[in-house]
Amino acid sequence: MNLVTIDEIHAAAKRVAGVALRTPLLPQLWASPAKLWLKPENLQQIGAFKVRGAYNAIAALDEKTREKGVVAYSSGNHAQAVAFAAKQFGVPAVIVVPDVTPRIKVEATASHGAEVVEVPIGQRESAAHAIAEERGLTLIPPFDHRNVIAGQGTAGLEIAEDLPDVEVVLIPISGGGLASGIGTAIRALAPNAKIFGVEPELAADTAEGLKAGHRVDWPVEKRARTIADGLRSQPSELTFAHLQVVLDGMLTVTEEEIREAVRVLARRAGLIAEPSGAVSTAAFLFHADQLPDGKTVAVVSGGNLDPSALGELLG
Amino acid sequence: MNLVTIDEIHAAAKRVAGVALRTPLLPQLWASPAKLWLKPENLQQIGAFKVRGAYNAIAALDEKTREKGVVAYSSGNHAQAVAFAAKQFGVPAVIVVPDVTPRIKVEATASHGAEVVEVPIGQRESAAHAIAEERGLTLIPPFDHRNVIAGQGTAGLEIAEDLPDVEVVLIPISGGGLASGIGTAIRALAPNAKIFGVEPELAADTAEGLKAGHRVDWPVEKRARTIADGLRSQPSELTFAHLQVVLDGMLTVTEEEIREAVRVLARRAGLIAEPSGAVSTAAFLFHADQLPDGKTVAVVSGGNLDPSALGELLG
Repeated sequence: MNLVTIDEIHAAAKRVAGVALRTPLLPQLWASPAKLWLKPENLQQIGAFKVRGAYNAIAALDEKTREKGVVAYSSGNHAQAVAFAAKQFGVPAVIVVPDVTPRIKVEATASHGAEVVEVPIGQRESAAHAIAEERGLTLIPPFDHRNVIAGQGTAGLEIAEDLPDVEVVLIPISGGGLASGIGTAIRALAPNAKIFGVEPELAADTAEGLKAGHRVDWPVEKRARTIADGLRSQPSELTFAHLQVVLDGMLTVTEEEIREAVRVLARRAGLIAEPSGAVSTAAFLFHADQLPDGKTVAVVSGGNLDPSALGELLG
Repeated sequence: MNLVTIDEIHAAAKRVAGVALRTPLLPQLWASPAKLWLKPENLQQIGAFKVRGAYNAIAALDEKTREKGVVAYSSGNHAQAVAFAAKQFGVPAVIVVPDVTPRIKVEATASHGAEVVEVPIGQRESAAHAIAEERGLTLIPPFDHRNVIAGQGTAGLEIAEDLPDVEVVLIPISGGGLASGIGTAIRALAPNAKIFGVEPELAADTAEGLKAGHRVDWPVEKRARTIADGLRSQPSELTFAHLQVVLDGMLTVTEEEIREAVRVLARRAGLIAEPSGAVSTAAFLFHADQLPDGKTVAVVSGGNLDPSALGELLG
């Protein structure tokens, strides 16, 4: 399969500059003598890394296509990312969400000026395709797209620039777009680093699939058990092919480890992470025995938490 | 009075580079259409801006003096900053704290390798001076020192670099070192910006003093009423003279406004701020009518919260 190249990621970096925040690497004193840096993507304006890929994909469209508008199906961070990115170009965005989506997320998406279409939960994808065709909109998928992968990879460029001798990189895995992109960048620019994907035990389809040598399908009910609601997707053929090439291994973390990592990030790092964003830190905290001992970057992928979850997790 | 110059701040920036984190400006979507950027000094390794001034003051000592070691009196962020900075140079640090200091803060300071000396609360300053003389250590004051002010000013250099057309800067005021430093940098590099100090209503000695044209003394019991425990100090002659020159005005915020700002920073910005660090955001949220309408930077000065306070404030 034709994988995303470092040149595509460099091109993405030029596009997203000034829109996606160039997040710093945050050295963590409390993790001494081990060396831990956090890559706080929760500080992006929309609260997650997703803006990198969504903006890059929309920016890469030819102007005529882009003017007609874009559509996405997601109830999570990708929805906000596409809505936000479309707004930067002043083009229409339609976001298809399940009709069970919490009001707060619908409103967050609508607040970027997007049209939110609510459909029964099983019809998200087909509805999005139908709307795309009807209205001539371009579908921006959450991870199964090389410009989305290249966009997410810009976070990897920044890691390699800021810490060229990085030895371990920990990345949350859901659909695999973030790990595909960051992994590609790190392989090219810091080839000595070991790259690990991290999943909840309760949604560890990628760990199982990589071991088996092919994608495996976990039923959605099974994946839905984890508190890490951003990590319930599964890789596509395209992202799985990247993960097979760029990852050195997979780690899985328990629900209690995820909750504790959210608490540690708040108490020690000053960051609000959503459970999905905290799994990489959980891996560092609780599975260091499976990791090389060296300069480690944990990607904190997002921080969008309901206020009630904030109280429950930190109270 | 001979005020700190922009050249001294530039010199400080060279010294602190690589030790103090160069914090990004975080644009805040939720504050749209107003324009708000946060300067998240809570993300410094010690959880507060204080590392800038402490490190600069120690770095500026001649080597022989520095080798003997340093001493500071503080139970808060300055204690950790001096202990951390001394450790970077491998020189001894003694931190004098009141014997009522919570264990967690004593341990945080000791964890940087500093010797912690506990004395009755009224004797902190005299004990620190006595130890300095006895052992030949250099006292690093929390704000009443031009190298400390110049170090804190490096945050202002970064603001002016990242947002050259900044129009409003909001800075918490306690002893006034941070506002003196940032204010001096902004005056020099972004002279059109208006600079405001922010205090809790319950510790508004500086607002009163600036109006009166001279320092006023609020009894410590009165200042101790505010939840913003980092804002209970009062300016020295040196910092007050800076504040008279660099500030365009003062704002005061209520205890409930401070608490709400801590919640907003957690929910909307992904940041854990301590109450003292949140007063500038509180001023933006609740006193915009007293501010020019324009690109605004709120300095989030620190994030060191007890876990119990975290639960109480966010739960």
